[in-house]
Amino acid sequence: MNIKKMYDSLKSLEQKQTIKVEGWVVSNRGNNKIRFITVNDGSTISNMQVVLKDNLISETNADQISLGSSVVVEGELHLTPEAKQPFELLANKLTLLNNVDEDFPIQKKETTLDFLREIPHLRHRTQLFRAVMLIRNSLLFEIHKYFQEHDFLNVAAPIITSNDGEGAGETLLVDDESKDYFFKQKAFLGVTGQLHAESYAAGFKKVYTFAPTFRAENSHTSRHLAEFWMIEPEVAFYELKDIIKLADDLLKTAINNTIKKYPDEITFLDNLSEGKLKVSLSKFLDNKLTVIDYRDVVKKLAEVPNEFEEKNIYFGMDLASEHEKYLAEKIVNGPVAVINYPKDIKAFYMHQNDDNETVAAFDLLVPGIGELIGGSQREGRYDKLVQRMNDLNIPLEPLQWYLNLRKYGYAQSSGFGIGFERLVMYVTGVSNIKDVIPFPRVAGQIKM
Amino acid sequence: MNIKKMYDSLKSLEQKQTIKVEGWVVSNRGNNKIRFITVNDGSTISNMQVVLKDNLISETNADQISLGSSVVVEGELHLTPEAKQPFELLANKLTLLNNVDEDFPIQKKETTLDFLREIPHLRHRTQLFRAVMLIRNSLLFEIHKYFQEHDFLNVAAPIITSNDGEGAGETLLVDDESKDYFFKQKAFLGVTGQLHAESYAAGFKKVYTFAPTFRAENSHTSRHLAEFWMIEPEVAFYELKDIIKLADDLLKTAINNTIKKYPDEITFLDNLSEGKLKVSLSKFLDNKLTVIDYRDVVKKLAEVPNEFEEKNIYFGMDLASEHEKYLAEKIVNGPVAVINYPKDIKAFYMHQNDDNETVAAFDLLVPGIGELIGGSQREGRYDKLVQRMNDLNIPLEPLQWYLNLRKYGYAQSSGFGIGFERLVMYVTGVSNIKDVIPFPRVAGQIKM
Repeated sequence: MNIKKMYDSLKSLEQKQTIKVEGWVVSNRGNNKIRFITVNDGSTISNMQVVLKDNLISETNADQISLGSSVVVEGELHLTPEAKQPFELLANKLTLLNNVDEDFPIQKKETTLDFLREIPHLRHRTQLFRAVMLIRNSLLFEIHKYFQEHDFLNVAAPIITSNDGEGAGETLLVDDESKDYFFKQKAFLGVTGQLHAESYAAGFKKVYTFAPTFRAENSHTSRHLAEFWMIEPEVAFYELKDIIKLADDLLKTAINNTIKKYPDEITFLDNLSEGKLKVSLSKFLDNKLTVIDYRDVVKKLAEVPNEFEEKNIYFGMDLASEHEKYLAEKIVNGPVAVINYPKDIKAFYMHQNDDNETVAAFDLLVPGIGELIGGSQREGRYDKLVQRMNDLNIPLEPLQWYLNLRKYGYAQSSGFGIGFERLVMYVTGVSNIKDVIPFPRVAGQIKM
Repeated sequence: MNIKKMYDSLKSLEQKQTIKVEGWVVSNRGNNKIRFITVNDGSTISNMQVVLKDNLISETNADQISLGSSVVVEGELHLTPEAKQPFELLANKLTLLNNVDEDFPIQKKETTLDFLREIPHLRHRTQLFRAVMLIRNSLLFEIHKYFQEHDFLNVAAPIITSNDGEGAGETLLVDDESKDYFFKQKAFLGVTGQLHAESYAAGFKKVYTFAPTFRAENSHTSRHLAEFWMIEPEVAFYELKDIIKLADDLLKTAINNTIKKYPDEITFLDNLSEGKLKVSLSKFLDNKLTVIDYRDVVKKLAEVPNEFEEKNIYFGMDLASEHEKYLAEKIVNGPVAVINYPKDIKAFYMHQNDDNETVAAFDLLVPGIGELIGGSQREGRYDKLVQRMNDLNIPLEPLQWYLNLRKYGYAQSSGFGIGFERLVMYVTGVSNIKDVIPFPRVAGQIKM
């Protein structure tokens, strides 16, 4: 039984039942008559207090056990419903597996996030990173579970591709040591699995990817990584409104279940945010998602005086991060789906609306982060799609297979992409994307 | 309701209930008085038979609807418990969304696997690939579910790394378009997430990765890909015997649940294998896993006359694929875990046994495939590990962070890696690894 299970099932714990805990020491205080050693086993941020008495202390040299040491403890459970901690373990056996060397960089006193970024292999042994990674894991599984329970098929879209995706040019290239075209052509690390997922939606109807994605991002911001995980559902027989509903329901379900599973971790993070995190999440979870047309966004932003660095607000502009955040944080005061963007600022494959100016796209913007999701109804009309690609000078030949999906029993397909790390930021309140992935990769450095 | 749900809940279906099906036409026969159109929606290999009568045929030009067309059908359910198919749909509305062009390459008549490999974006619209991908998806989710229910934390080990993993030299390199060291150093696509997972096991105790992995494999075999998915659990406080038990239990649970969920698909694949698939899987599922020492394997193989290309059988040899298969297929007649390999044919990080000759490693070999899993207890003794790296001329500096895990409260860690595509081969009976992943990547070509 791990420590989380004990906290989760307080009512079924029995006084004096025998318990064995394996874990790492968090603190060690007391004297040679009685010692209190708290142990964490990674299942929760909450610890187990172990009480050692008399002979056991001297036999095990318990006063020598440092923070970070690995131990196995057996003993008798004492329920203490009146105390701050609901139970403690009266040890009758303690085995120290390995102590820590003096240079163990994780110490009780606080360290900076910058310092911890230098030791990504160890920082999870702090309470903050333990909480973040537990919530990350929960969100990952809740997302898989949601899709599987709703009959989605997971598709392994290829990572190594022959095209550079959305044509943004920020791709990483792959080759073997000889640099002699291992794949007999230029090979890229995928920036999206969408096009391949679309081909599988045309047969399995509801599919999703959950995989690493790569961008040769040179911008050093708190929101960008060169390697990050994306979730891309794609559904045939779906239009824009259906896919927005799916995004809303998926997020609410995954976040709700995660909050239920890790209440202590959310409370800990909420305290760090000075009570802002829970308020912000509730605002999303308890309300209907706001959907607003891009045209209306531009009107509303244009009415805001002296707020933006980019003051030129007009139909056709790409919303900057400052505009997205202002919209979510100040105008809507919560997550918002902006729909029907001008076609010239969106990708070629999006469904062209009848107004000839906009496409059936949506971005989901959230407070504190900006864009969390981008999606669209896909252009299903072969001729319209070819025309758009020609207008944008996108060569048809490499994507002929994708175009051909429209000729073989096409059923209107729609989908979106969630940046998984941005979702973890949103749910944990952590403000730097480097702190929500175990080993962040950015331009100019690889740590570990 | 999708078609699979209807087959799964036959008893709760009601005579004449209204049903709507969206999917793709599989066959269309009949005349202008009555037509039988079978439809598949991707949820199962089983189809729904739709019956059209009289006016509806002429109104919808139903005789023109080709295999592969996308349709939406509404009608009345007729339960036919005596017939071969347990139900059919008497249509009162049919909408043809899109027909197929004449060059649609998927036709009723059989096509070769080679031909289908040329069109990976369409081949899932055959019964074989539909079955394989449904089972692949089920195995993926069952594996996630198993780990999550057993308190494992999913870790995103980095894909882009600074070391070439096991030093086999078969790595792919990553850089941006300028080829000017985007990461300010040589960057590789990961061949394993193990070392990083170990650092997380030292804190979360039970962790696993499930991610794409890369090898610059130049061998064109039916068992190798340049891009494949790996599952790598890593558990602190675990020794070799514990990790073998975990592998056995994980596989049996995931396979059993998949067979239960997709009985029609397994039966279809069993028929293709002429009844061998179910027999083979049962042999694994219904029996205790055989564990055998490498020394005993060598003895047994040495006694086999005239069977192998490589006839020189001796302690210290690396088992070739022919030996592995013979052991699993002929000697054990089922999956087998070989343990305690000579240290010189295994990786540096494995626990050195007291005999000074072997390491606490295991490979799980299965009939038809050979190696499905490779794992080990890790060397936890800092000095022994350094000594081994020095013996093998592996530079310490890039792996100092990994070595240091032994100094900071190390708790004996063990783990293994499953080649996910090999598992899908094993469970589907499909003999070429290119046919169990949507878009296979091998040296010399990228299709789509």
